[in-house]
Amino acid sequence: MAPPIGKTYWAIAEGYIPPDDTERSPELVSHETACLLNTSDQDAQVKITLYFSDREPVGPYHITVAARRTNHVRFDHLRDPEPVPRGTEYASTIESDIPIVVQHTRLDSRRSDIALLSTIAYAG
Amino acid sequence: MAPPIGKTYWAIAEGYIPPDDTERSPELVSHETACLLNTSDQDAQVKITLYFSDREPVGPYHITVAARRTNHVRFDHLRDPEPVPRGTEYASTIESDIPIVVQHTRLDSRRSDIALLSTIAYAG
Amino acid sequence: MAPPIGKTYWAIAEGYIPPDDTERSPELVSHETACLLNTSDQDAQVKITLYFSDREPVGPYHITVAARRTNHVRFDHLRDPEPVPRGTEYASTIESDIPIVVQHTRLDSRRSDIALLSTIAYAG
Amino acid sequence: MAPPIGKTYWAIAEGYIPPDDTERSPELVSHETACLLNTSDQDAQVKITLYFSDREPVGPYHITVAARRTNHVRFDHLRDPEPVPRGTEYASTIESDIPIVVQHTRLDSRRSDIALLSTIAYAG
Repeated sequence: MAPPIGKTYWAIAEGYIPPDDTERSPELVSHETACLLNTSDQDAQVKITLYFSDREPVGPYHITVAARRTNHVRFDHLRDPEPVPRGTEYASTIESDIPIVVQHTRLDSRRSDIALLSTIAYAG
Repeated sequence: MAPPIGKTYWAIAEGYIPPDDTERSPELVSHETACLLNTSDQDAQVKITLYFSDREPVGPYHITVAARRTNHVRFDHLRDPEPVPRGTEYASTIESDIPIVVQHTRLDSRRSDIALLSTIAYAG
Repeated sequence: MAPPIGKTYWAIAEGYIPPDDTERSPELVSHETACLLNTSDQDAQVKITLYFSDREPVGPYHITVAARRTNHVRFDHLRDPEPVPRGTEYASTIESDIPIVVQHTRLDSRRSDIALLSTIAYAG
Repeated sequence: MAPPIGKTYWAIAEGYIPPDDTERSPELVSHETACLLNTSDQDAQVKITLYFSDREPVGPYHITVAARRTNHVRFDHLRDPEPVPRGTEYASTIESDIPIVVQHTRLDSRRSDIALLSTIAYAG
């Protein structure tokens, strides 16, 4: 419908999944999401790399965003090559073979209510 | 007063309207808004397209932003061609025939208090 | 210290000051702020224009950001040519005679806790 | 892993550390963070300068972001040349000798729950 929009290389400097009670309903457990949008007519092959404060980067994690679809990737669901640790500061880059748009959201439910943040990722 | 400012093509990769209690006062029901600003001296004809994770895009939704006006479009008020489902992840693109500025806001009132997020949309 | 940074023309498409209880302490009453930063060695003369959904724009409001200073302008403190109404959606543009940086923040305290949002303004 | 991404000069126009109860656990005391990401293969030497509304800028504060690392700098942990005062509005610039990515986050815990905000810094 709409023409392709976006960039192929993005960065999210903020990353932190609180050490949360994981017995709540899944959408209310504290989590971070990279929202990926692919408006083109071909699938996007995406590689996520995680950066830490005290050790070498981990990745890439391989994600596909199908043509004309959005994929909201929860960092706490990433498994391969390894899960993202809770209670640890990290950052991430997102590389795609075709232009996509990336937005970052965190839901924090450590206390009785929720806090939400969202920001557009940095397009390199 | 001020000269025109903006772009004609925008994307919001994050989208989610919580499956909320809809009996509260309308401005405190969880909702998402695309805030559109048209500083020019002619009306802007805007087309919104919604993208999902598991089906084809829906749209366009037709919106007018009058000359020298702002239009705060609530996604849960969109009706034609179809309402935006609650509890579903989506993304959106906003195309305008003249430059506008787009900002995205979500109010989440699922628990006792409210959470707010806002981010500038991605300008393609 | 640092060289000048910024742009001369900015827009904030989101604007809304909740119809709040104004008897709380001033920094906890719901409000919106345009944070202006002038890193240069000369004062910046700034004009803010407000846009509404159903009437002509209002302004300009004249603000000075002194050399090497930040000025966090609360919209609910603007008085001339007229106060910003509560409970009304609006948008704004910020024009400066020299480059500045603009960030937008809203504190919402309508319910028992506070919600905060912030986003970089759109640089035209 | 991923190629370098970012810019060498950034600004955050919003800054405010609430006058908080500092007896809580450190990660829940109100604070602001500049999240710095260095994806390159060499260390980044970073200078932070703070701007205020009523006095001359303070700095630079010297920070290193090691190669392929992220450094989440809490403003309330800065000590040299002087601590950042609580309850005071400020802004900041971040200069690096090589490209980095900067994101700004505030956690506000003045009332019973937390509020979070985050925004990409302005890249000059």
